[in-house]
Amino acid sequence: MNAPVSVTVEAPLAVVLLEESVRRNPLSLRTMRETTRILRELHDDPAVKVIVIAARGPAFSAGHDLAEMVDRTLDDEREIFEACTELMTTVHEVRQPVIAQVQGTALAAGCQLVATCDLAIADESARFSTPGVKIGLFCSTPMVALSRAVGRKRAMHMLLTGDMIDAATAVDWGLINTAVPADDLERTVIDLATRIAASSGDTLAIGKRAFYQQIDATEPDAYTLMTQTMATNAMTRDAQEGMSAFLAKRTPVWSS
Amino acid sequence: MNAPVSVTVEAPLAVVLLEESVRRNPLSLRTMRETTRILRELHDDPAVKVIVIAARGPAFSAGHDLAEMVDRTLDDEREIFEACTELMTTVHEVRQPVIAQVQGTALAAGCQLVATCDLAIADESARFSTPGVKIGLFCSTPMVALSRAVGRKRAMHMLLTGDMIDAATAVDWGLINTAVPADDLERTVIDLATRIAASSGDTLAIGKRAFYQQIDATEPDAYTLMTQTMATNAMTRDAQEGMSAFLAKRTPVWSS
Amino acid sequence: MNAPVSVTVEAPLAVVLLEESVRRNPLSLRTMRETTRILRELHDDPAVKVIVIAARGPAFSAGHDLAEMVDRTLDDEREIFEACTELMTTVHEVRQPVIAQVQGTALAAGCQLVATCDLAIADESARFSTPGVKIGLFCSTPMVALSRAVGRKRAMHMLLTGDMIDAATAVDWGLINTAVPADDLERTVIDLATRIAASSGDTLAIGKRAFYQQIDATEPDAYTLMTQTMATNAMTRDAQEGMSAFLAKRTPVWSS
Repeated sequence: MNAPVSVTVEAPLAVVLLEESVRRNPLSLRTMRETTRILRELHDDPAVKVIVIAARGPAFSAGHDLAEMVDRTLDDEREIFEACTELMTTVHEVRQPVIAQVQGTALAAGCQLVATCDLAIADESARFSTPGVKIGLFCSTPMVALSRAVGRKRAMHMLLTGDMIDAATAVDWGLINTAVPADDLERTVIDLATRIAASSGDTLAIGKRAFYQQIDATEPDAYTLMTQTMATNAMTRDAQEGMSAFLAKRTPVWSS
Repeated sequence: MNAPVSVTVEAPLAVVLLEESVRRNPLSLRTMRETTRILRELHDDPAVKVIVIAARGPAFSAGHDLAEMVDRTLDDEREIFEACTELMTTVHEVRQPVIAQVQGTALAAGCQLVATCDLAIADESARFSTPGVKIGLFCSTPMVALSRAVGRKRAMHMLLTGDMIDAATAVDWGLINTAVPADDLERTVIDLATRIAASSGDTLAIGKRAFYQQIDATEPDAYTLMTQTMATNAMTRDAQEGMSAFLAKRTPVWSS
Repeated sequence: MNAPVSVTVEAPLAVVLLEESVRRNPLSLRTMRETTRILRELHDDPAVKVIVIAARGPAFSAGHDLAEMVDRTLDDEREIFEACTELMTTVHEVRQPVIAQVQGTALAAGCQLVATCDLAIADESARFSTPGVKIGLFCSTPMVALSRAVGRKRAMHMLLTGDMIDAATAVDWGLINTAVPADDLERTVIDLATRIAASSGDTLAIGKRAFYQQIDATEPDAYTLMTQTMATNAMTRDAQEGMSAFLAKRTPVWSS
């Protein structure tokens, strides 16, 4: 049995690749756990500054593996959704920015994974939906990420109808950042990842962690947290180097 | 005195109709209470799977009935806004998805009602505003729904100026889902409602309840809630039937 | 040493003007404190109903003054970011709506100031970015205002890349309200400010305070607060006058 997900590190980038193209890359329990494990390893690798999540074949991901969810106990079902939530949470917890590279369809938990990544770029023929309602299983965990990305009315439309939205709509609604021709997809993602990786790895890690700390807080609490974060960030070696280089009009040399 | 609001049930749909077209369907105390009562009855009717809120005449709703709010006591005023909040809260609490069908103008609490419904479709000549500021009474309760639908700067513009926005802008900002020609409005709404009603009623109810449970929670709390919701949803008869039917490539038969 | 910021009151409007055009209006510690002081004075001036924040020269603001942040103690850094947060918080706390009038570039804390103002109008050639990541100092405090204005994926793109967005994109994403030709900028802002100032000053103050009270609350808490706010607003002299004037089809005469 081949691994359902692989990782290739070409520092400063790492590409996590869903490998089950024939089955349209289902987020089976095994795939979710393996992806979580890989992400945690990358988190601990200081040479990796940006992570890409991509998928082989015509589809990004068809979502959960339904065969795993029929005729099971409540504990079995819970195990699957806990593994899914752990994967999504890990995408936010790793120190590196995570970019989704999306072609074909991203459905249900596959759509959730796109919504969860820090950034997402899709082939302009990609499509997105949360069709669980049609099979009696409302996309309630995908909705956490989806409703925070596209807002209430649009999330409700996707969730209540299961309708597909196209890539242009996904850009318009803020579900993804950009849509590009299929032939340009990989290059565009790698270009973006490389540009981001030109910054200090410590600074990226501080910023990403800060983003998710503040996004759910009240505005006063967010400012209390971020005021402290910026003051300590300003004291780091890379910030002092970056500001000094900027004032001296030279290129900074990062320690991370 | 005719009832200011009526209900027609043609299962699986129910249409709640504001009936005071000549007065532009004000949300009088009586109308708000009657609408709340109707919604609660529909909530208890398992044959109804989707609710439409529509209005007779050239306007959807002019908002509160100002004649009820001049020369009153603080308790009188409070009674009106509590009834309004109860109506809006009930729209979120009923088990069925609620679709606003909007023509003409939706003003103040009328605009709030559109923002509050799970979905909204408007005639492309419809217009929306929160003009309370112009009469000294800032649209503070409409702002709760409005600011959560369209975001800060856009809500502030509408609230501080009372300017009308047109239907295309309302779509662009996420206040409504779609705008269609006047002649297509009712048909488009019924088509959408019918498509949604093809899903399991229990699944729709689980999903709608889940949506409002998670939308205000922090992301970690939202995931804790939704992980449990999805696991129990997966164990329901309709989810097991839906997944089995999908895997067997047959049409599911819902129990609800 | 000239004052880095000035104020001109032409009731009912006040214009706060960043005056260091040659240095691209940095938000130095002195400028931030002086702007905060001016805003608090305007808050106490009942003749002022709307505040405009504008800037001299080719740029709105380049953000913090980096020269103040190199080779400092943690306490020094903290002092700067606390002064910045105090300025942003004060923009929300003053009783008057605050409109940003933006030309050229608004960077880092300058972009944050635009995101923080209640409304913003820009020259159509204006550009916005949060480029701190490029100098090792992630824009963590600007991110509080930015992510609440434009949403997650778009904020992440700006924060992780430091890329500029143009005025049309800023309108599309809800960072600003409108973009107009450079020659029309000042007139458009003054027209908007004048239209808003035609409303009751007390009503504007009630509404603005209410907006920020409710925006971070859960929806049930927001409704509890706003129901009370609207009931007491309805009892004010200006609301009773406004509603009576509306019903009598005459122009209201405000007490504030």
